[in-house]
Amino acid sequence: MEKFVLGIDIGGTNSKVGLIDESGSIAFREIFPTKSEESFDIYLPRLKEIVDKLLTITGKVPIGIGVGAPNANFLTGMVHEPPNLSWGSVDLKKRFEELFKLPTFVDNDANLAAVSELLWGCASGVKHLLVVTLGTGVGTGIIIDGNVLQGAFGGAGEGGHIEIVPNGRACGCGGAGHLEAYASATGMKLTIKEILGSDVDLALLGTALKSGDKDALKIFGESAKYLGKGLASMATILFPEMVVLTGGVMNAGPIFLEMIRAEFEKMILDLLEEK
Amino acid sequence: MEKFVLGIDIGGTNSKVGLIDESGSIAFREIFPTKSEESFDIYLPRLKEIVDKLLTITGKVPIGIGVGAPNANFLTGMVHEPPNLSWGSVDLKKRFEELFKLPTFVDNDANLAAVSELLWGCASGVKHLLVVTLGTGVGTGIIIDGNVLQGAFGGAGEGGHIEIVPNGRACGCGGAGHLEAYASATGMKLTIKEILGSDVDLALLGTALKSGDKDALKIFGESAKYLGKGLASMATILFPEMVVLTGGVMNAGPIFLEMIRAEFEKMILDLLEEK
Repeated sequence: MEKFVLGIDIGGTNSKVGLIDESGSIAFREIFPTKSEESFDIYLPRLKEIVDKLLTITGKVPIGIGVGAPNANFLTGMVHEPPNLSWGSVDLKKRFEELFKLPTFVDNDANLAAVSELLWGCASGVKHLLVVTLGTGVGTGIIIDGNVLQGAFGGAGEGGHIEIVPNGRACGCGGAGHLEAYASATGMKLTIKEILGSDVDLALLGTALKSGDKDALKIFGESAKYLGKGLASMATILFPEMVVLTGGVMNAGPIFLEMIRAEFEKMILDLLEEK
Repeated sequence: MEKFVLGIDIGGTNSKVGLIDESGSIAFREIFPTKSEESFDIYLPRLKEIVDKLLTITGKVPIGIGVGAPNANFLTGMVHEPPNLSWGSVDLKKRFEELFKLPTFVDNDANLAAVSELLWGCASGVKHLLVVTLGTGVGTGIIIDGNVLQGAFGGAGEGGHIEIVPNGRACGCGGAGHLEAYASATGMKLTIKEILGSDVDLALLGTALKSGDKDALKIFGESAKYLGKGLASMATILFPEMVVLTGGVMNAGPIFLEMIRAEFEKMILDLLEEK
């Protein structure tokens, strides 16, 4: 009999629940709003209802749960005051295991994105990998010699919070000038307001970029410049074989990717030439 | 019979040769100028002469050679155009093995500093370690889960070349605004010239710092500020258990260390509080 696991992706905006088989295919899935202003105690029963519905419809019995959540710590099973959710600190692993009676593993979404690129994505066979997720925040998942870098406290890979602009924009974490404050969707919305003087939908601007719209080029160009710097710092420290960019912001497509690549290469060229 | 290895530390200014026993103790050592303006073909026979003398005096027969050199690559055995030496690219491992008829291993000095702190220094038992060497350049040695991070091409850990100051000082590598351009001895000499308007010996200034000299406080304070930023970026990505600062510049002592610690904590506090 085929085995299934429950995969739960908790984002700042939406949560996704899926039943995943052994090949990594998502058999069934459901998406619902996370409602970041709600407490975890209100979120959890809502999630339970959706999981129960999914299991009833499909008649499947999962053998375990994997959860991706902001600021989740693989080593402790905790979620620590995610800036984009009103949860405070929650022992996610414990609460899930109590409620669902299934072994549960948690990690932050960027680490899990790195694992999935390695297992089923574009990084098959890669030993040293850097995955950067560009969504509500900026996350980094780092693979070293085939394993996720967890660091001393399971917090490694906070590349969204390296300083890119001295004395720059306030960051959700309490710092200033961090990559996330510029290159996340949240940061890009601020850039839009600064450059265009009004709110324009980021997804619309991404579509406009594909037809070479001047404002879109300017705004994604700003983001590419900061991403180039951030990626260069990370690559200078880690020397990955491959860098993967993912997350909603990357829906802007190949023009944006090429802008980032150009800025990255400008920053790192001298070092790469040495190697 | 006790076994010995030859340890050779090739710096931008001086080279050191030592006979090291199995406990890691340096039984005999010799220091001589590297003469960075000379080619490798002139350097190598000079080194050979000193090694031969050492072996003759001690009567020891080493079983192998370990070499630390700038821009040395553990995976390839090559030294790649070190900016502080006029060597170009040299197959160091091959040239040493041909000349000395002994198995030779090469790596950059910062990686080896990290290994030695782990084996015989202050980082015994540490799994995730960051060692930063402050000398003619700024090197970084990174230990992940007890192993040296070599990265995809054996070039990982070039933390001296992350951008700290956008559009900042020219760096020896061809880039601009890099940590090395400010926090190395070379960089600090430029800071001295900028702040004092004349050349003052860095070691003398380090001594002056210990008695609270105002100029020394200002100059080491500048360096501490940039080091705080650089260490924060590295720690944010890697989350090491311990950071070790070493190299000639650290002879300035505990006052300098505390200045760096304060700047580092200012940069990283919000993130650490989250964990």
